[in-house]
Amino acid sequence: MENNSYVVKMNGNGVNEKNALNGNGLNGNDINHKTVNGSVYTAKQKSSRQRWNIRPSEMSNNTLNPIRAIVDGMKLTPNPEKPMIALSIGDPTVFGNLPTNEKVIQAMKDAIDSHKYNGYAPSVGYQKSREVVANFYSCPEAPLESEDVLLTSGCSQAIDLAITVLCNPGDNILIPCPGFSLYKTLAVSLGIQVKLYNLLPEKSWEIDLQHMESLIDDRTTCLIINNPSNPCGSVYSKEHLQNVLSVASKNCIPILADEIYGDMVFPGCKYQSMASLSSDVPILACGGLAKRWLVPGWRMGWILIHDRNQIFGKGIRQGLVKLSQRILGACTIVQGAIESILNDTPQEFYHRTISFLKSNSEICFSELSTVPGLTPVLPSGAMYLMVGIEMEHFPEFQNDVQFTERLVTEQSVFCLPATAFEYPNYFRIVVTVPEEMMVEACARIREFCQCHYRPCSQDSNELDQ
Amino acid sequence: MENNSYVVKMNGNGVNEKNALNGNGLNGNDINHKTVNGSVYTAKQKSSRQRWNIRPSEMSNNTLNPIRAIVDGMKLTPNPEKPMIALSIGDPTVFGNLPTNEKVIQAMKDAIDSHKYNGYAPSVGYQKSREVVANFYSCPEAPLESEDVLLTSGCSQAIDLAITVLCNPGDNILIPCPGFSLYKTLAVSLGIQVKLYNLLPEKSWEIDLQHMESLIDDRTTCLIINNPSNPCGSVYSKEHLQNVLSVASKNCIPILADEIYGDMVFPGCKYQSMASLSSDVPILACGGLAKRWLVPGWRMGWILIHDRNQIFGKGIRQGLVKLSQRILGACTIVQGAIESILNDTPQEFYHRTISFLKSNSEICFSELSTVPGLTPVLPSGAMYLMVGIEMEHFPEFQNDVQFTERLVTEQSVFCLPATAFEYPNYFRIVVTVPEEMMVEACARIREFCQCHYRPCSQDSNELDQ
Repeated sequence: MENNSYVVKMNGNGVNEKNALNGNGLNGNDINHKTVNGSVYTAKQKSSRQRWNIRPSEMSNNTLNPIRAIVDGMKLTPNPEKPMIALSIGDPTVFGNLPTNEKVIQAMKDAIDSHKYNGYAPSVGYQKSREVVANFYSCPEAPLESEDVLLTSGCSQAIDLAITVLCNPGDNILIPCPGFSLYKTLAVSLGIQVKLYNLLPEKSWEIDLQHMESLIDDRTTCLIINNPSNPCGSVYSKEHLQNVLSVASKNCIPILADEIYGDMVFPGCKYQSMASLSSDVPILACGGLAKRWLVPGWRMGWILIHDRNQIFGKGIRQGLVKLSQRILGACTIVQGAIESILNDTPQEFYHRTISFLKSNSEICFSELSTVPGLTPVLPSGAMYLMVGIEMEHFPEFQNDVQFTERLVTEQSVFCLPATAFEYPNYFRIVVTVPEEMMVEACARIREFCQCHYRPCSQDSNELDQ
Repeated sequence: MENNSYVVKMNGNGVNEKNALNGNGLNGNDINHKTVNGSVYTAKQKSSRQRWNIRPSEMSNNTLNPIRAIVDGMKLTPNPEKPMIALSIGDPTVFGNLPTNEKVIQAMKDAIDSHKYNGYAPSVGYQKSREVVANFYSCPEAPLESEDVLLTSGCSQAIDLAITVLCNPGDNILIPCPGFSLYKTLAVSLGIQVKLYNLLPEKSWEIDLQHMESLIDDRTTCLIINNPSNPCGSVYSKEHLQNVLSVASKNCIPILADEIYGDMVFPGCKYQSMASLSSDVPILACGGLAKRWLVPGWRMGWILIHDRNQIFGKGIRQGLVKLSQRILGACTIVQGAIESILNDTPQEFYHRTISFLKSNSEICFSELSTVPGLTPVLPSGAMYLMVGIEMEHFPEFQNDVQFTERLVTEQSVFCLPATAFEYPNYFRIVVTVPEEMMVEACARIREFCQCHYRPCSQDSNELDQ
């Protein structure tokens, strides 16, 4: 052995635990004589760490997934006499009724066969692929060039990079309530505070602008707008988006527009990207293939940088490029396929998806509208529908979590309690399930509510006041 | 307009810059009266941010890529009379001479055609895919089960998650010098310090264990070992790895084993995974498909958790799972293909790649060994070879950066200066280029050195002392 000092192994069992716990308080000048295999070694105290004590980092401790926390805490035992219907999973592919388009599949196989997309791409994506995305989303009001596009590992990484480049620990971001839980998960893990602005169910989930503006302070560095919305299925009007932009403009706050459900709006409703309406507010628009092309597992997302007034300037662009170099982005095969995916997928495919989602939403809404004690809110896009529970009529249950838990026990229908979106006393229904399943689920929800509904007496109402 | 307060737009040009700069120092109780379009509005001072001032975050500022920093600062103008030969790119696919195997391609197409892998996978990867990786790398000395495997977006994300779960800001990690630049990039961006331990070129880049151990202090939370090595091409002996493990064991420091070049060792040399030799030290082994299967763009990596003594325990495992939920991991198509990729790729494919790399390394080593002023170090694996420059014999150049810059100017050969690996006066050669290109490049390097070599006089040596 060349150098004995490297092969001295402390006998773990022989270490005095009490002394070992002193680790951090040791005097660096102390000399410690230890007997190992009969020989005396002079141990260098400074580097002597005599006990295993590996703890997960604060960042990992602070990475909280509220959906998991809530669902894992629920007792989900379906009624064995009824097959389970999960209306909880925001993945349009699980039931097989919404396959992606054959052109999308062919584009992937062509990319593989070309042997051109196996090596490293630039960390922000192939130039050609960025150009294709830029052309697809460019419009006269919000033109895009390839350098305005970063390709990412799913829309999640797009949101992560956008938050990370705009915010320092101690800053705060404004996020919707109810809202997609990832914003908070990412921000809190980075030491960034979140402030929740209210959406108004009675106004089709428009933003309570007064409330939102009241939350802004000197450390507010990002306003997240999710349109169309998960979990609400809402789609904002041009006027409402302009009012949002006015608040951002007045307070000089950039917008992170989560537009992963962009263009997924029902006929008769018009989707407008935030950027197409902005005259000055700089916007990082996040999107991806996941929902509209029905391939969430492929992890192809993007950030579109809209900054016509050079307010982000070089700093934010360079910051995004630097951050993209930490782990690189999207799979090169999908990058290679994206030109054909965006340009060759027939319009009919998009229409069919939307028609299906609209039809299922309407079935669900009209069924649940007549269920005593429930107040569904009609969506205009995306894949979701929120349903209010008039808790006063269901005195057996303390909250939405207990309500949806018992719905599984009795009717084998699982809806996500909206506590997962920081919005108690609602639950979210995913409308991507096959139609017959949606009909059956609604019938079971009706039966469940009829079974547990209690009319409020006038007296008890007065007692409450 | 429903609420006028939201549509008040400050006129950017009318804001007094001096006052606006006061932003952070404003008294929250101040009331500010502003005239907009002839009306007087009472502005709430607390939320009044009257000037755009968006700066990239500290994390993005601290995300530094030394290779980019150095290469972007170089004047790389090839000699127009000689075609460029880039020996700088650590991507085995760029020259087309090292295609992946047809089974790998077929596995991907089958995964696409199955339509089974378009939805979300669990954030740590499909159970079945994790099981396949576990079985592939399990050995009697270091058994693995599916729950010991996390699939990630490339080996870079594996390293990112491993560092992030083990270290807090202010902690430090030990990394090799010369070494792959990503360790430092990731750590510094997270506020984690790096300490560089020396590798010894005269001992085939073995670790200077005494130096390494001297760097350990109470805040050392991770020891990164890269074997086989980028940029050195070194492969450590069983005895050396055991000595490394002894240092880690004695000082109770977990190991992040970057084994992305695992099994890529030349005939006559044996690769041993760190985990197969560890009796107590817990190890996060990072790997992926990138190099051995020659598909770096596909972003399929993994962490193998080796923790037979439950030293990591539940905490680190759960921490990794939580961190994996931030942006999810690898593309599901590649996950779906991995069973066939690992189990059906013929041994002949691996052998052919290795034989080629060995042959090219030997050509390069033997050519450059006889070039005056250069000291190549023979590699045993991976895809790299480091070459020392005896700078005293090249007085025209101050350092490796100037040397390699001029090599481009005169000979159109680009090698990465090892300053990019924190190791001045060396350069790295990538040995994946076609053989004829390697031969030609070596001839040009010889010509370049012959042209600039100056024998040292005895006098100047004495003056130096």
